[in-house]
Amino acid sequence: MTHVERLAQKLLKGDSSCAALVFSERNRRYLSGFPATDGALLVTTEGSYLLMDFRYAEAASYAVKDCQVVEFANLYQKLEELLKKHGVCRVYLETQMLSVAQAQLFGEKFRAFGVEIDLSPALDDALMALRIIKTPEEIQKIKDAQAITEAAFDHILPFIKEGVTEKELSLEIEFFMRSHGAENVAFDLIVVTGKNGSLCHGVPGDTRVQKGDFITMDTGALLDGYHSDMTRTVALGQVSAEQKKVYDTVLQAQLAAIDAVRAGVPCWTIDKVARDIIEKDYPGRFGHSLGHGVGVEIHEWPRFAKGSETITEPGMVVTVEPGIYLAGQFGVRIEDMVVVTENGCENLTSCKKDLIIL
Amino acid sequence: MTHVERLAQKLLKGDSSCAALVFSERNRRYLSGFPATDGALLVTTEGSYLLMDFRYAEAASYAVKDCQVVEFANLYQKLEELLKKHGVCRVYLETQMLSVAQAQLFGEKFRAFGVEIDLSPALDDALMALRIIKTPEEIQKIKDAQAITEAAFDHILPFIKEGVTEKELSLEIEFFMRSHGAENVAFDLIVVTGKNGSLCHGVPGDTRVQKGDFITMDTGALLDGYHSDMTRTVALGQVSAEQKKVYDTVLQAQLAAIDAVRAGVPCWTIDKVARDIIEKDYPGRFGHSLGHGVGVEIHEWPRFAKGSETITEPGMVVTVEPGIYLAGQFGVRIEDMVVVTENGCENLTSCKKDLIIL
Repeated sequence: MTHVERLAQKLLKGDSSCAALVFSERNRRYLSGFPATDGALLVTTEGSYLLMDFRYAEAASYAVKDCQVVEFANLYQKLEELLKKHGVCRVYLETQMLSVAQAQLFGEKFRAFGVEIDLSPALDDALMALRIIKTPEEIQKIKDAQAITEAAFDHILPFIKEGVTEKELSLEIEFFMRSHGAENVAFDLIVVTGKNGSLCHGVPGDTRVQKGDFITMDTGALLDGYHSDMTRTVALGQVSAEQKKVYDTVLQAQLAAIDAVRAGVPCWTIDKVARDIIEKDYPGRFGHSLGHGVGVEIHEWPRFAKGSETITEPGMVVTVEPGIYLAGQFGVRIEDMVVVTENGCENLTSCKKDLIIL
Repeated sequence: MTHVERLAQKLLKGDSSCAALVFSERNRRYLSGFPATDGALLVTTEGSYLLMDFRYAEAASYAVKDCQVVEFANLYQKLEELLKKHGVCRVYLETQMLSVAQAQLFGEKFRAFGVEIDLSPALDDALMALRIIKTPEEIQKIKDAQAITEAAFDHILPFIKEGVTEKELSLEIEFFMRSHGAENVAFDLIVVTGKNGSLCHGVPGDTRVQKGDFITMDTGALLDGYHSDMTRTVALGQVSAEQKKVYDTVLQAQLAAIDAVRAGVPCWTIDKVARDIIEKDYPGRFGHSLGHGVGVEIHEWPRFAKGSETITEPGMVVTVEPGIYLAGQFGVRIEDMVVVTENGCENLTSCKKDLIIL
């Protein structure tokens, strides 16, 4: 079944008086596979339509298989025509992605031809329920994005030398990814060195790499609409016994958490496996959650986090990224992406994790 | 008067029972001068508060002069406290930037302590009325961003050779800007060559520059929250008589439009000056508007466009960017940014416009 058909089934449950209008670029692309900055996707029980203006209609008609591509000059007129054709009188809208002003405009236009809008979380919830489980095709796209991320990691190692700045390294990684096939970077890349390593979401700045520094690089590529996400911490020159111990603790926590991933367990239990190991020697120094879903958004569901009661299912793609942050000293984070399977998980990251001392 | 004070005056008009809550990153930064991915800015008739979590509160307290910085652990609790303190019972929200879900959440939380939300366009309209007129400080920031854009233009010219791709040129420009002080690029840069030049918003691809091509580069930098925007079309090797005529027509249209800019005229009249010149020999080949406002957003108000009745005022910063697009052949666009003055305009772009043949 296609994404669109699954959405129709899950949300509309055969009620032909209801429809869903997917307006956000991200969800439109997820459902249709077609990237376009403007347009809308109308899902009814009797069929689905990707509404595109003249700029995109022709290209979409060749590329899109899962719904009928319809060209519009006036979006609201075309929607009126389709809603009337299918006898729809209630339309679900996205509430997370739609602005208040846009929802007000839809409400006004639709009311004028006798259709009500539904601003409950129903459509967002149905989209989340679909998107949280990745198909084999989606997992392949994430793997392809990850391949670029790993190539960039190999590429950057020789650039890590005394005196190079965080920003220079970050730009070099981004430039490599984007000139090697990535649509874009998956997020604002993080490169932090030395004391800055204790800022888990630091912005690359003018700080220069020094001998004895840990350098943490949290990077990812966007390819064909799917994200990848990987963090590695490497050292320059030498490391102290304390640095080695912190690195080993993070690695041990990460390996144990990956080992604990399988279908049918509450997400908080995976977080706890890593957290318990770190808390023993470094209490309070792992100040974020263990991981997050990755897909058409860089941060999606589920979360490997305290309090997350979501039960893991096969096909969920989640990061496993414990860290230890010693304020004013240094930090270490190690991150892989895994896909949950019936009896364990598949690691989508193949880049090695033994401490690299450059 | 500060931006915050002007907003309070324009929107609240002394009514102390009303307040404005600015939630979007862009408008928060515009009003406070402080960049932060999270937070809120509360404007009352008696004073204004920038609410920041622990990550930003300290840095904000040093940097922000125009409102009181308040640290929060729970945003809604802190808002309740402040709204009660000032006796506010109605809060304006942004409707263009706020999602339906976020507005629903504010509505629910605020109702619980007896405050109503206002989802009319009042706050957005007041922000637009402020932002459309730039202060001398804002104009300086746009000039600083433009200086990087022009340096990047000088940098890229020697790279324009037979065989180089649009994407390579685009990445080289971006890399230069970001390693020479730009926070980011101002938008996805456009570099199109040869036949692709007729796509006024083409995405840089793998097409290679050939002898006789026009290469159009629409580029800009983001610096300290302000954007710049400039387009130049250059040629490689030689140009045909037709290419020369098209270039000269666009340049003539652009110079005439810039010459027509002054305070007190309807925006559509500036568009018409350029359009009339182009329509004479190239009817229907200038398929977009003449220009748009530039500031904390790359596309803001006013628009130099057919039908735009907005009256120009001193301090408006607008692009002047006519183009001629001959499908299947080539295209030319030339774009400067100008600031409207009482009797004319100041051109913020100093890069020359005589045809460069490389």
